[in-house]
Amino acid sequence: MITFPDLPFLTPLSPGQLAAAGVPEGWHFGMADVVRFHELDALNHVNNVAYFRWFESLRIPYFAAYHLSTYSPGDPTLVVMTNSARYHAPMFLGERYVTVARTTGFRNSSFVKEYAVYAEGTLRATGECIVVCLEEDATTKRPLPEAAVKAFMTRDGACRG
Amino acid sequence: MITFPDLPFLTPLSPGQLAAAGVPEGWHFGMADVVRFHELDALNHVNNVAYFRWFESLRIPYFAAYHLSTYSPGDPTLVVMTNSARYHAPMFLGERYVTVARTTGFRNSSFVKEYAVYAEGTLRATGECIVVCLEEDATTKRPLPEAAVKAFMTRDGACRG
Amino acid sequence: MITFPDLPFLTPLSPGQLAAAGVPEGWHFGMADVVRFHELDALNHVNNVAYFRWFESLRIPYFAAYHLSTYSPGDPTLVVMTNSARYHAPMFLGERYVTVARTTGFRNSSFVKEYAVYAEGTLRATGECIVVCLEEDATTKRPLPEAAVKAFMTRDGACRG
Amino acid sequence: MITFPDLPFLTPLSPGQLAAAGVPEGWHFGMADVVRFHELDALNHVNNVAYFRWFESLRIPYFAAYHLSTYSPGDPTLVVMTNSARYHAPMFLGERYVTVARTTGFRNSSFVKEYAVYAEGTLRATGECIVVCLEEDATTKRPLPEAAVKAFMTRDGACRG
Repeated sequence: MITFPDLPFLTPLSPGQLAAAGVPEGWHFGMADVVRFHELDALNHVNNVAYFRWFESLRIPYFAAYHLSTYSPGDPTLVVMTNSARYHAPMFLGERYVTVARTTGFRNSSFVKEYAVYAEGTLRATGECIVVCLEEDATTKRPLPEAAVKAFMTRDGACRG
Repeated sequence: MITFPDLPFLTPLSPGQLAAAGVPEGWHFGMADVVRFHELDALNHVNNVAYFRWFESLRIPYFAAYHLSTYSPGDPTLVVMTNSARYHAPMFLGERYVTVARTTGFRNSSFVKEYAVYAEGTLRATGECIVVCLEEDATTKRPLPEAAVKAFMTRDGACRG
Repeated sequence: MITFPDLPFLTPLSPGQLAAAGVPEGWHFGMADVVRFHELDALNHVNNVAYFRWFESLRIPYFAAYHLSTYSPGDPTLVVMTNSARYHAPMFLGERYVTVARTTGFRNSSFVKEYAVYAEGTLRATGECIVVCLEEDATTKRPLPEAAVKAFMTRDGACRG
Repeated sequence: MITFPDLPFLTPLSPGQLAAAGVPEGWHFGMADVVRFHELDALNHVNNVAYFRWFESLRIPYFAAYHLSTYSPGDPTLVVMTNSARYHAPMFLGERYVTVARTTGFRNSSFVKEYAVYAEGTLRATGECIVVCLEEDATTKRPLPEAAVKAFMTRDGACRG
């Protein structure tokens, strides 16, 4: 089972920390990071694929915090069905940024997640993915855990449907 | 300037090779590859982010073959503005696959590209991205090269608009 | 179980193909590939870390061909203990290259592998790693399979000790 | 030019922070991070190649802090000539760790760097690389900046030779 100890940069940032980083209201789960050299491409800015890694690196602790899965035996298998990103402004080596995630809607065994990246108070990228909740066989649909549904609604304001 | 010599696996595959790989009509530019160990994730199938790398690895020789850019001095700067993928079926270590790409539409200084991944005759993933054509400053819009527009229309059947 | 069908670029290249690619005698297992865009870094040449990925992408089919493991249930767990590379000349986008691997020595439950990268007839990089053969618990040493030892000696000329 | 603002996790950690993380004396430059999902491989522990990325992600801010290069025009081109790692114990998803780096020796236009990774007070991996200092042509040797030599000696206790 994975735990995510309380260090500042990967911990779900506090509302005050999110606001200080220029994240608008409506986002409640985020982490801070910095652009690494290997995320640049030959054009010298962050490669478009790197953002999907950032979304993933936030999604895994989100799954733990929202009671979906800690990748322990018996947990649901969560599979990304669609993935998209829109790039608003380029990012450069050494830039600090905050990635945020939320669930906007859900059904019995799937949900829609949104992402955004903020740096120096400006929006750099947004993303969206649909995730399905499956049994261990990675095929049979499995209802979302009750605790996750509750967290989607109370923490993120997500709607069923 | 980049050139892509005529070896089988990265050369634009011939129509016969594409058909033999189970690619339906309507795709004219593709390459073959095999799933590598580092593309798997802890769930033991190809990670969803890897597909965006495959699309990129096809996009660069496509840019050369369609007269958009060989990343030489004076060539346009081509920037991905949006990126999406849909995952139809999982992929596993050692699987052979073919990635295909085409341009479906274009405007003065942007175009829409579609991708698909086929393995053992079945569709595994699709993708789409919007690319803008910029000057070297990566900011000012630049009209698409005439030769590229012609290739979009004659090779891919792309429409303006 | 993984199989690696007989397509030219990842198949163990034939002696004639290796020689044609400028690989000197003494290497018997290799594959051809091409430099991808994402392997470049901001200096516009292949990043030093990418070579370790190439070694890995050759090591896995080598393990299958040399009867060490096809990552099937019951197979040994093979763990890299040390890893090194020396960079002889830079590599660039679109370059064709051949990666080769061989085992130079082995003990009861470990072996030493060497790698080299050739492009346009010149040596670009070399590497070496020590691999240990473990039980499924990834802790207990396990003797090398007899068939692997035989392949090390007869195919690569490796020595015990 | 890159700057690395004073946030806790990538800033050169203070001596007190390094000691609290279980790093022994003799290391003066380090950063904290956490294992990400994409760094795992199919065996469910951190892949051996990921450590070279960690070393790189520390090396770039080290180059800035030690007056070698901020990747600005006129700065030396720093090229890794050799790279090695030894893996002491496996690492898992969500683990906090500290990567540390130091220069142990230098000549006119090259230097030797060592790395180590500590987590929960135990050593997980070590590394070493040789870096050469070149002109912008990436070919001609260039003497190390005076300020870098001074930092090597006074901060890391490095020796010429």
